[in-house]
Amino acid sequence: MTDTLVETATYTDRHGTRHPLPDAAAEAQVRADDRSHVFHSWSAQALIDPLPVAAGEGSTFWDYQGNSFLDFSSQLVNLNLGHQHPDLVAAIQQQAGRLATIQPSMASDVRGELARRIAEVAPGDLDKVFFTNGGADANEYAVRMARAVTGRRKVLSMYRSYHGGTATAISLTGDPRRWANEPSDGSVAHFLGPYPYRSSFHSDSPEQETERALAHLEQVITLEGANTVAAIILETVVGTNGVLVPPPGYLQGVRALADKYGIVYIADEVMVGFGRVGEWFAVNHFGVVPDLITFAKGVNSGYVPLGGVVISQRIASHFDTVAFMGGLTYSGHPLACAAGVATFEVFERDGILERVRDLGERVVEPRLREIAATHPSVGDVRGLGLFWAIELVRDRETREPLVPFNASGADAAPMAAVAAACKQAGLWPFVHFNRMHVAPPLVITEQELVRGLDIIDEALTVADGFAA
Amino acid sequence: MTDTLVETATYTDRHGTRHPLPDAAAEAQVRADDRSHVFHSWSAQALIDPLPVAAGEGSTFWDYQGNSFLDFSSQLVNLNLGHQHPDLVAAIQQQAGRLATIQPSMASDVRGELARRIAEVAPGDLDKVFFTNGGADANEYAVRMARAVTGRRKVLSMYRSYHGGTATAISLTGDPRRWANEPSDGSVAHFLGPYPYRSSFHSDSPEQETERALAHLEQVITLEGANTVAAIILETVVGTNGVLVPPPGYLQGVRALADKYGIVYIADEVMVGFGRVGEWFAVNHFGVVPDLITFAKGVNSGYVPLGGVVISQRIASHFDTVAFMGGLTYSGHPLACAAGVATFEVFERDGILERVRDLGERVVEPRLREIAATHPSVGDVRGLGLFWAIELVRDRETREPLVPFNASGADAAPMAAVAAACKQAGLWPFVHFNRMHVAPPLVITEQELVRGLDIIDEALTVADGFAA
Ligand SMILES: Cc1ncc(COP(=O)(O)O)c(C=O)c1O
Ligand SMILES: Cc1ncc(COP(=O)(O)O)c(C=O)c1O
Repeated sequence: MTDTLVETATYTDRHGTRHPLPDAAAEAQVRADDRSHVFHSWSAQALIDPLPVAAGEGSTFWDYQGNSFLDFSSQLVNLNLGHQHPDLVAAIQQQAGRLATIQPSMASDVRGELARRIAEVAPGDLDKVFFTNGGADANEYAVRMARAVTGRRKVLSMYRSYHGGTATAISLTGDPRRWANEPSDGSVAHFLGPYPYRSSFHSDSPEQETERALAHLEQVITLEGANTVAAIILETVVGTNGVLVPPPGYLQGVRALADKYGIVYIADEVMVGFGRVGEWFAVNHFGVVPDLITFAKGVNSGYVPLGGVVISQRIASHFDTVAFMGGLTYSGHPLACAAGVATFEVFERDGILERVRDLGERVVEPRLREIAATHPSVGDVRGLGLFWAIELVRDRETREPLVPFNASGADAAPMAAVAAACKQAGLWPFVHFNRMHVAPPLVITEQELVRGLDIIDEALTVADGFAA
Repeated sequence: MTDTLVETATYTDRHGTRHPLPDAAAEAQVRADDRSHVFHSWSAQALIDPLPVAAGEGSTFWDYQGNSFLDFSSQLVNLNLGHQHPDLVAAIQQQAGRLATIQPSMASDVRGELARRIAEVAPGDLDKVFFTNGGADANEYAVRMARAVTGRRKVLSMYRSYHGGTATAISLTGDPRRWANEPSDGSVAHFLGPYPYRSSFHSDSPEQETERALAHLEQVITLEGANTVAAIILETVVGTNGVLVPPPGYLQGVRALADKYGIVYIADEVMVGFGRVGEWFAVNHFGVVPDLITFAKGVNSGYVPLGGVVISQRIASHFDTVAFMGGLTYSGHPLACAAGVATFEVFERDGILERVRDLGERVVEPRLREIAATHPSVGDVRGLGLFWAIELVRDRETREPLVPFNASGADAAPMAAVAAACKQAGLWPFVHFNRMHVAPPLVITEQELVRGLDIIDEALTVADGFAA
């Protein structure tokens, strides 16, 4: 939000004409259409004020007033290669010009190529891909496969999780977005996952947290009836609900319990797959092989809607002669897949996974540890790769959250004030409950990353004002 | 599939290089990737043989052997403007180059413009749009709105319908794809719709069919408990399950029953919206105003995944101060919306609605009536615009279907033989149970349309061989 940017910023309209920013007339038109005709998700429509966005490039986007924002939220943590990555744009333009779409029951070159590339980087024998439009339907169909293969219906999922908005996906979800939607899928039960900073198991080390969280999971399996449980689904690193990195051995333990009871292990990597934590799939970091992996977002940075399920040979082969009873018009959409193939090419050519690990370890982690040491409002920092959470508290001793669970309105004011301070300084933050996440595009420059962390550091003084 | 086409056909690979067809090496690669790594919908994976498609243009697509197919199925009845429409391609390329995506909670010019254009052509006071990725999630969220507004849970939907693959959508579905997925959403009950050719109500005229079908619906409402019913959902013209055009007065009657009992009327126009029957929305043809309309497919011909719900003011305003609890990462995706805006421009400039009505009335209907008169296997022809069904029977007297309900394998052989004859002659047909549908791109030339109908006419001699 410097004067320089305001002076030089431009945007291109739908007809290809470039305009200087600010552009008050264009902003007014966008706002008018939006407020009159667009119905927004997860919102009371009269209580929101959506920001009209004019342009984006790399890790930055601009509003029509010419303000620029460093996007530390990668939009909805999907924009892994940033705005307007030239290779993704070219791949989309090329594919649009040759064959925008064909139906799922035919074979497409880019669809097959993307499936093969995904199979190559997926762990173990996961080597077939069922493509969907996004994360919610990926989880819907993963659960459907598990139910068909096991002949059981129940699914266990974690409290503090998000798995999507459609009926089964929202039932799997372990956060308040589920509440207004119950009952949807009646065969879901929730369990508590590891969360060392706020242990449900009264543990005092990560190792003990793992051990007790696994004992809890086994108890839930037993009490729910092991032979009624089709699947256990969990985010490999819990995303929106806290960047909860599983403590050592936890995922191995889940794998072992799934094996012991003949349960399908589904890893939801919609948010953490495709480089967010420095690996193609986050499970690769932990050395564990689930039966199904669901993905979306990072597979093509959300330039074209795409998601899917990566399927183990054992599960895929169940459907060799038995029909899989699920589908959608746009399964394996060629335009979306072309952007996915380009994503693989960029990741490999530019060493994206390596740079995520490097920036995470060398720049983000030390800086956040320093921030934790200096701000009384910071209770915990945790993360992996370019995916971190700063958990804010009123009191570091009691660990009382800076705002109550699921706070809104006046209750959420302290977090809103921190977010406002970030935006004021030109950073678009990801804020959820009493946390701020650090989830910038994976192509962010080191300089931008440092600038963003500087802004957060400064904004946290606002939070400190509410802390003991 | 003439020699000329084989000689001249080309395709462009992913890197922009043109190749002549046939191209056996490219075909082998596409087939290998597909068979090894792509998991297909609604199928037993070892029993299918997906056709590798190399190119498409207008109403035609080519395989790698250089065979061309006139697409009388518009892929999955989504390709309303045909393959590679230059305006849609340009709109996608332009939008990809300026701003491929921004998140749902911000405001986007093309998203707002598309919402406004949709509101302008939607009937009554339906003037807000909640965008989704496709048809299934559109129906999921329409049902969610109805439940929130009414405080009731149950939804009534028709037997012989398709509403999508996710948990609530597949529960709404009234065809065999639901069976393997029960129970999913436990609050759905099915009723019988009008179907003059095979009346469930022993009627002997369309007027009587309407009257009795409405009496049946009211009975189901009463027996299910009127004050437990949140919504009635129906396809305005039933699509995949038979191109069942509602007889006069039926939809008005549904509207009246919905009003009488305080039930939300949801019109599923995923397949029939955006010109398929010669109107923006099929309800416009019938002069009825539902509370919610769901759409997808034709909104942008499926070039980029997109669907949505058009919302009446009464329902939208419920969510002014109460949050709508649903959402998805790609709601109102700018790239998809840009293709939607271009669709409006093409429809208006090229008079698409008018030509659909004209071709339907002047070319398709008379020819199908003639086909019905000359082929003993044809029991019924029916339709509207460029959306028709030819229902095949073993016996015109008994109306015994040419193949049993939900037939597969050997039982379905007669229909497979008809389909094979069409493909052999260069036409890609839409075949479902004992029906062949006529659903070509709306931009099909009159010459192509006649050629396709000629091919079908000829192929039906194969069906005649099975008929009395
Ligand atoms: C872990 C996880 N799973 C599933 C989803 C749902 O994905 P979508 O919004 O594409 O349906 C999300 C979205 O944020 C997610 O973070
Ligand atoms: C009437 C109708 N509703 C809903 C759907 C589901 O749409 P999608 O496949 O995009 O989820 C379809 C798909 O064919 C349909 O024909």
